[in-house]
Formats: sequence, C-alpha cells, structure tokens
Amino acid sequence: MNTVDYTAERPGVALLTAVFTPFDDDGRLALDRVEAQAKALAEWDCPAVFVAGTAGEGASLSVAERKDLVERWCEVAGGQLDVIVHVGHTSLAEARRLAAHAQASGARAIASVAPYFHRPGDVEALVSFCADIADAAPTLPFTYYHIPGATGVHLRASDVLVAARDRIPTFAGIKYAHSDLTDLQRCLELADSRHEVFVGAAKLLLASIGIGARAAIGSVYNFAAPLYRRMLDHIEKGERREAQRCQYLAQQAIDIVAGYGGELPGFKAATKLTGLDCGPCRSPLRSPDEHGLELMRADLERVGFLEPRDR
Amino acid sequence: MNTVDYTAERPGVALLTAVFTPFDDDGRLALDRVEAQAKALAEWDCPAVFVAGTAGEGASLSVAERKDLVERWCEVAGGQLDVIVHVGHTSLAEARRLAAHAQASGARAIASVAPYFHRPGDVEALVSFCADIADAAPTLPFTYYHIPGATGVHLRASDVLVAARDRIPTFAGIKYAHSDLTDLQRCLELADSRHEVFVGAAKLLLASIGIGARAAIGSVYNFAAPLYRRMLDHIEKGERREAQRCQYLAQQAIDIVAGYGGELPGFKAATKLTGLDCGPCRSPLRSPDEHGLELMRADLERVGFLEPRDR
Amino acid sequence: MNTVDYTAERPGVALLTAVFTPFDDDGRLALDRVEAQAKALAEWDCPAVFVAGTAGEGASLSVAERKDLVERWCEVAGGQLDVIVHVGHTSLAEARRLAAHAQASGARAIASVAPYFHRPGDVEALVSFCADIADAAPTLPFTYYHIPGATGVHLRASDVLVAARDRIPTFAGIKYAHSDLTDLQRCLELADSRHEVFVGAAKLLLASIGIGARAAIGSVYNFAAPLYRRMLDHIEKGERREAQRCQYLAQQAIDIVAGYGGELPGFKAATKLTGLDCGPCRSPLRSPDEHGLELMRADLERVGFLEPRDR
Amino acid sequence: MNTVDYTAERPGVALLTAVFTPFDDDGRLALDRVEAQAKALAEWDCPAVFVAGTAGEGASLSVAERKDLVERWCEVAGGQLDVIVHVGHTSLAEARRLAAHAQASGARAIASVAPYFHRPGDVEALVSFCADIADAAPTLPFTYYHIPGATGVHLRASDVLVAARDRIPTFAGIKYAHSDLTDLQRCLELADSRHEVFVGAAKLLLASIGIGARAAIGSVYNFAAPLYRRMLDHIEKGERREAQRCQYLAQQAIDIVAGYGGELPGFKAATKLTGLDCGPCRSPLRSPDEHGLELMRADLERVGFLEPRDR
Repeated sequence: MNTVDYTAERPGVALLTAVFTPFDDDGRLALDRVEAQAKALAEWDCPAVFVAGTAGEGASLSVAERKDLVERWCEVAGGQLDVIVHVGHTSLAEARRLAAHAQASGARAIASVAPYFHRPGDVEALVSFCADIADAAPTLPFTYYHIPGATGVHLRASDVLVAARDRIPTFAGIKYAHSDLTDLQRCLELADSRHEVFVGAAKLLLASIGIGARAAIGSVYNFAAPLYRRMLDHIEKGERREAQRCQYLAQQAIDIVAGYGGELPGFKAATKLTGLDCGPCRSPLRSPDEHGLELMRADLERVGFLEPRDR
Repeated sequence: MNTVDYTAERPGVALLTAVFTPFDDDGRLALDRVEAQAKALAEWDCPAVFVAGTAGEGASLSVAERKDLVERWCEVAGGQLDVIVHVGHTSLAEARRLAAHAQASGARAIASVAPYFHRPGDVEALVSFCADIADAAPTLPFTYYHIPGATGVHLRASDVLVAARDRIPTFAGIKYAHSDLTDLQRCLELADSRHEVFVGAAKLLLASIGIGARAAIGSVYNFAAPLYRRMLDHIEKGERREAQRCQYLAQQAIDIVAGYGGELPGFKAATKLTGLDCGPCRSPLRSPDEHGLELMRADLERVGFLEPRDR
Repeated sequence: MNTVDYTAERPGVALLTAVFTPFDDDGRLALDRVEAQAKALAEWDCPAVFVAGTAGEGASLSVAERKDLVERWCEVAGGQLDVIVHVGHTSLAEARRLAAHAQASGARAIASVAPYFHRPGDVEALVSFCADIADAAPTLPFTYYHIPGATGVHLRASDVLVAARDRIPTFAGIKYAHSDLTDLQRCLELADSRHEVFVGAAKLLLASIGIGARAAIGSVYNFAAPLYRRMLDHIEKGERREAQRCQYLAQQAIDIVAGYGGELPGFKAATKLTGLDCGPCRSPLRSPDEHGLELMRADLERVGFLEPRDR
Repeated sequence: MNTVDYTAERPGVALLTAVFTPFDDDGRLALDRVEAQAKALAEWDCPAVFVAGTAGEGASLSVAERKDLVERWCEVAGGQLDVIVHVGHTSLAEARRLAAHAQASGARAIASVAPYFHRPGDVEALVSFCADIADAAPTLPFTYYHIPGATGVHLRASDVLVAARDRIPTFAGIKYAHSDLTDLQRCLELADSRHEVFVGAAKLLLASIGIGARAAIGSVYNFAAPLYRRMLDHIEKGERREAQRCQYLAQQAIDIVAGYGGELPGFKAATKLTGLDCGPCRSPLRSPDEHGLELMRADLERVGFLEPRDR
C-alpha cells in the first residue's frame, strides 16, 4: 500500500504542517533548530511535516542543503512524525536525485510542484515529468503539489489527478494550493479511496471541508494550529457559527501577517512571535525587523488572534 | 424597513432566480411568456426574481424594453414573487431613470452592477455612482451586484459593503458573483442583520453555505432548482456526503451546458430542455440549435442530471 | 468608394482626434463648446474627429445625448472636418439606431467597439454583431474599434479584419487601441489598399510607424498635437533621434496626466491646461480639481512638455 | 571599463545569439556539438553568444552541467565570440557559484533573470538579489535579464535599470524580453552610454529599432539570422517597406514554428531544419518528431521562409 492516508482511519480533518527551513542570521542552514520545530508540532499531534516546499524555501536551497535538511528531519521525526519531502526542481535530474535521496533517508512520501521555468504545455507533459520523478523513489507515495500562483502552471489539477493515477504507480494524490474550489471539489469527487486531496489554502479550509475535504497541508499551522484545531472541534460538534468565526479570525490573522513582507516572511515571523524562531527568510524574500514584529503583534492582538501581553 | 431579507425569519437557504428575458425567434421581446416563467417559479416557491440582470441580458435591451419587461414582471408577480430590478447601466442618468421606473412600477428592490466601460478607479468612485442610482428610488432597497468577470471592476466587495452602508441610506447588501470565497466570507462576517449577501456562483453554493451564506441569486435555478433544493434538504438533515454529491452533479451539469455557446446561452437552452422556452439569446450571444440541444440532453442524461427519455 | 482613407493621397502620417464630450459643471451636455473644439482642431489641420468613443464618454451618454452630440458635430464640422461617429453599444438595436442616425446626420463614417458586457465567444459572433450595425448605415464606411482593455474582448484584431472584410460590404478598417504591436503589424500587412489601420496607442505611435502605420486616432492629440506633429516632421526629415525624444516626452506627459484620476480625466484636464475647457468627466470618472491641475501643470513644466509660465 | 558594448563603435544593430544547449537523444549534454554551433555563428559574424539562458534550458540543467557547458563554450569561442553566461537561479548561493565560475572560465559577461519561485516584492529586493550575484564575479559586466512571462516578476525594467546602476558597480544593462515597448523605450532613453539595452522579442525588433534599439539577443537568430540581417540591411538603406516585409515574414515563421510544441522546442527544431542539430529539448518541453518536422518545413516553405527543396 503506497498511499499517504491521514483520513481513512480517523474521523475529522488532518492538519499537516509545511515547515519552515531554519536559517541563522547570516542565512545559513540552522539544522540545530529542527528538533525544536518537531517538538512544537508533536505538542499538538501534528501527524506529518512537509519539508522543503514553498514554506521551506526549497527553491532557495542548494541541492546539497535540501539533502542535509531532509536527513535531519528524518532523524528527528523518529516514528512520531511522517516526513513528506518536496523534491520539485526545474531540472528533472535534480528532482530525481532528491527523490532517490528521500527514499534512502527514510522519508514517508515525496511530492513535487510542476516545473516552473520551462512549463509543461499540457497535462501529458506534466504527468510525464512527474512520472520520471516518482520512478526514482519507487517505494514512496508521490503527491502532485498544485500551486499555480507560484509555478505559473494552470493546468487543471483534476485533469492531472485522472491522468497521473493511470500513469504513476505510486501516485498518492494532490496538494491543492489554489483558490478555485470548483476544481478542488472535482478532485475530491474524482479521488478514490487510494488518493488523498490536501487543501493548501488555509483561508479556505472551512469552505473546503464543506465540500468534502478531509486533510490539509499548510504553513499557517506553524503559528495558528490552536485556532484551526478549535475550528475543527466546532465543526465536529456541529457548531457552525463558531467554526465560521474561527475561520474568519484565521483569515484576518493571515492578512495581517502577510502585510509584513508577504505571506511567507509574514508567516515565519508570526511563528517567531508565537514562540518558535526559525530565523529570517532568504533573499529575495525579506523578513520584518524587530519593529515590524512589534507592529504585527499589536495588530494580531487587536483582532483577538493573540492575547495581549503584560507590558 | 428597507432591507431585502430572505433569511431572518426562516431557516435554511433562500434561492432567488435570475430570470431570462424571453425573446421570440426574431429576437423581439416576448412578454407573453413571462407569465409561464412566473408560474414555473411559483411551483417550487421561489421567493423572488432578479430581472434584467446578466441572465436577463439587460445590457442587450434598450431602456424602453427594460421598462416594459419590468412592468410585465410586476403585473405577473402579484404579491407572490418579489421583483428585484437590475438597473445597472454605463450611463448614470439611464440607471437613475430605470431606478425611478422600478419604484413607480411596484418593484420590491433594485440592484446594480458597477459601470463597465469607464470603470471606477476606487471604492469611493463606485459607491458614489451607486449612491446616485439608489437616490432615484429612495423607497427601494439597493443591492450592489458584484460580478468582476463581466464588469472588469475588481474592487473588493467587502470594501464596497463597508463604504456603501455608511453612504447609501437604502443599502441592502451584495449579490456576490465571483469565485473568491475569501472575500465572500469577509462580506458575510461584515454584513450585519440589515444586510444580505447573495451568492451568485452556483457551482460554489455548498462551499459558500459552509462559510455562512444563507441566500443565493442565480440563473441556474431556472433549470436546476430541484437538484439544488435536494441539496439544501440534505444539508438540513446533516447528510453532508449526499449534499456534496448534489453540488458536484450541479457542477457537472453547469459545465456541460456551458459547453453549448457559453454559460448564458447554455443555461437558457437547458431551461428549454427542462420545459420552459424563453427563446434564443440576443447577439453577440448565440444559442445552440436543435441538434446542439439534443447533444446537450444526451450529455445531461449521461451524468444523471436528466432522466433518460423514452425514445 | 466607401473607405476612410487618410493616407493614400498624402505622404506622412495622419492624426485624427478622438474628441471629448463637453459637459458643464453639473455634468450636462454643453454643446455650445463644440464649435471651439472644432476650431482648435482646424488650427492644426486635423482631418477628422472621432465622436462619442472612449474619450467622448459615449458609454456615459444616453442615446438621445449621443444623437444631439453627433448632430452638433456634423453642423460645426462643415466640410472642414470629417465626423466619424462611434455607435458602439451593448444593445445591438441601439447601436443600429445610432448608425442610421449618423448616416442621416451627414457623418463621414461610423465605428464600433465590440459589445462589452455579454461578449462574443468567437470572431464570427463579433463580426456578425458588427455586420448588423454596419447594415444600418449602408452608405457609411464601418471601422472596428479594437480596445480589449475596455471591452474585455481579446479576439485578435487581425482575425477580425480578415473575417470582416469578407462579410461587411462597408468594412473600412480597424482602430487598433492595444499594446500588442505584433498583431498590429499583422493588421497592417493584411490590410489592402481599401482598408485603413488606425493606431490608438499614442505612446507607441513611433514604434507603430516603424512597422508601417500611416494613421492614428487618439485623444492625446487634443492636448499634444504640436509635439506629435513635431515628431512626424522629424521622421520625415530622417531625424530619428529627435523623433525618439519627442515620443519619449509624449510618453512622459501621458504618464503624468494619467496620474491625475486616470487617462481620460487626465487627458481632459491637460486639454483644459492647454487652452480648451471641455468640463469635467462624468461619474464614475473623476476629474482633478484646480489644485490637481496646478500640480499637473508643474509636473508637465518640469519634463519640458509645457513652457514655464510667468508668475 | 566593464560594459558589454556592441553598438558604440559600429553603426547598425548588433544581433547576439541565445544558443541552445545540445543534448543527445537520451537527453544528455552533447558538448561535442558546441563547436559546430560556434562555427555556424561565426559564418555570419555573430558577435556573442548567450549561454544557459531560456533558449539554453539553463533551468533544466544541473549546476554541474551548467559549468561544463560554460567551460566548453569558453574554449570553443576563442577570441572570436564573446561568451555571456546566464547564471540565474532560484538559489542565490548557486547563482553566485555560477557567476564566480563564469569569471574563472573566461566569460565576457554574466546575466541573470529575477528569481522565479519566491519572487521579489519590490525593485529593491530584486536589485539586492542581483547585486549579490554580480558581486561574485566582480570583473564581469552584469546584465539583468527581464523576462516576466517566464519569471512572473513584472517589476518595470526601467525602474530596475535606474536602481541597479546606482547599486551594482558592474551593472551593464538590460536584456528586455517582454512585449511592452513603452517600458522598453523608457529603458532606452534612461540608459546612458555605459548601459546597453538588448531587445529580446524578435517579433518586435523592427518596432524596437524604430524607438532607438541598437542591439538584440535572441534564439531566433539560430535559424533566422539571414532574414534578420536582410532586414537590417534594408533599414540601413532606408528601404522601410522591404524591412517591414522581412519583419512580417519573421513573425510568420516564428508563429509557425511555435505551433510545434511551443516557442523553444519549435525554434530548436527549426534550427535543425536549417542545418544545425542540437537535439531534442528536455522534459517538460517536447520536441516535434520527424513527421512534425516535415510539416513545419512545408509550412515554412509555404510562407516563403524556406526555399522549396527538390523532392
């Protein structure tokens, strides 16, 4: 069995975390912080981490750094956390190397975005690219990471799903990081029991659950997991209005932090605010400075996302 | 009290219908068919019609035709159906004339899209345009019809809502015909009890209900009301999986019919298939011919939207 | 012969002016100012005016106002200026009425944008719409006005040209108001001697001339004709560097004035600055106030577009 | 002196070639073909090659392959051809390594696209990224390669130019691969004698020359240099109509070949047709097969780009 299944055996909605890559102040990989990251996630029973993806600034790492990072996560995760490795790269050969390395390192699964400089002209070209990656890690489930805002590849995820499951023996599903819920629903309906569809757009998680989503992967859960778990509790209890309030508060928090340098630098900074410092983002992203962090905190207190501190 | 409230006093979700404008085969207004339209809607207790909007090809009518159409609807509706009149026009003076005429004709409310040739540069310019329209029908609730795909005006509906309710005494809410559910949720949370938010994207109705929507306006309900009402029943009974299946079937049906000349000609043709003939669309839209209609029927039977006919 | 030919018999490049519609301070049509407009254009031998188009805020006028405006221009123009009437409308019937009226009023030619609320799905649907308009003014040349930024209709102008000349007996050419010079060149190469291609993007006039353009229609010539005529003189004399400087200065001036409320309000205000007051724009556009006008003047003086005034 | 100057000392327009990376049928680097490429370019006095850029599928190569390729080009080029190395990468550290390697290998200059997965939020962030690259090759001129269609970075090139020349000591200019000629003209006017602006859009070369361009870099010159050189001759002789015909024929040829798998696979195939086989493109791009090649040849013969062969 090769799927990545977080929903079949338990009720409710699984939240997986797309983890940040920790850097020191000079922008060097700070692998000594990975353990603290894993510990923070274990505290709320996060079932899996998504490593070296968008949040992990995988594209800003060298291949060697990506391997080091993956090895560290596999060590630290133990049997506690699944490690899903993003191996996407514009060079197919590099992506294949990363895939093979993930398998050798004991990762639970791999995932890849579409190639994002030279772009596939149709679904067949994209699935062929993905198949060649998956083939380099034949024992690991492969998930297609659909994120057209970053890759510029707007082929419908549902079309990729249908083509990929015929073509890729280890095809496990889709990470759907896009705002079009019509195609998300199509994916959810077309996915059979062997395939998972992970919601990537945390602002739309409640709406996505309404149309059948059962799992999510996001970097927002680095700093907003408690709020989202509260939302999931309300859903389970049938408290719809309360769930909506949680989702709206999450949306407000996301908009606020994204105002400090963009989503990723903002999310990483908000995670520092809530207790886990993964360092700054790499160029061309720019993290807010201490003053920005204080303003962000005040904004987040104002909407009720953070408790006011004693001063 | 000036609001258009379809949700406060009843549970569940209200479906309002954006009606087609009936034409004869030469493209002339066929007002004699309005009665049959009203009757078909009364059969499933549709509470209100939205007249001369996108589905009604309001922009393809002359001002004189729009007035005739509104008068006919007001006569036919009696006390049974609310008549909400779309008065949007690129010329503010014409829009004001249409608003005054709607009030004089006994309409229940008015609505307007943003001006769509010369476009407002900011929310203030848009709200000012809307205020001048609303002012010409001072006893009627005014709804802003947000449909950026048609108007090219992408100002956030939630920003319009906040500005409009301070500025327009009769402001009643938003018809939100856009796929961005993030801003829809913002509208839903910002709307207070005096303001209604109508979902315009029928493919996303289930997702929209998940984040708090309680009312919809759409032309899909001309031919797919039974399916949507089944969906609403399932929601009320907590049968989530069945509700999702209904929404997905609706999505499939919409995609199929839109394949026959685009959404509007397809919807009008599907309504003919399901029993109510409103004639062809006007140029530049083109309705499918009889052969296309047969193909559409076969497609709709295949997915289970229509029952197979005896042949 | 039904073409609108401004290039066959003379060398150089013809500049036609898209005129503003004059309003008084309350936004009413101020037809008494048309004579001054015509006079200003006669001073530099402008061969023709384009009435009630984008610059003329045709979409913000009622049909009755458009007719009044056209009649006034035809009176004032005498034999001096050709009057080309924009008759585009979302309602085909209204567009036909405007076309017939233009013919009856003595206009030289008509033109129309694509319908811009319900949009044609393909070239055939667009050309059919245009043919029905042209048919209502059978003695007047018909020009298709390609302006996708305003209409949202992105069908290639060169495809429209090829289809229209087979289908529309009075087809005279294209007014090309778009930044894609590849398709403009295609139009220029495909146009035969019976068809004119008018450049609409004044910032790109020099580049357009480089690929063969011989005529332009623009509202920029209301306030920047002397600069553009200087540019044309340099071209004729083979003074390429000087021509480039003129075009760049024009670009700077356009960017500056567009910073005051958008292109159209800015252009209208700049025309007031240079001596011809056509009043404010109608809602939803907003003209700069006196203070804005002073700032605009200073900006235009700084780049050398306007001579510094004595103060 | 650190500029890359192809225009100061000679009249006319310089055509630099963005070379393809040769692969064998299994997709492996085929460095033995580089010599033939260099020879073909020497035949028409091409002054410089642009290596490992878009046409060179740099993003599809590993870092090691890029280094091997650059070394081979530097060997082969001798003193005959300048080698400009594209060192752009999503990882700044990798880009710096490539820059240092280019300098050590004897390249004439380096260039870089904007980072294209995590994108800079403003000009300052982009220029800072570029400055860090340039700093790793302090003796080589640095050119910013503006190609928003590939990178998704739409910051104005003219703004980058102004910021970069203050910040980057080795800043040499812009390769402008975008269709907006307004901003190209701004770049041309703002560039002083130390900075070069290279036109990247070969379909718009004639128009670009009209506004002052004096140099181009393109992959089209791999197969269409004779046509473009004919065009340049006509320009020099003042034969404008003939020059326009050449540009239009080039446009037709480009559109034809791009119909066979997209621009890059089509261009590479057309180069094979005209005598130089650089092998197929790498995944996710797909090169036309032999049958496609024959169809392409027939299409190119039909428009007159290729001479009909004896059969």
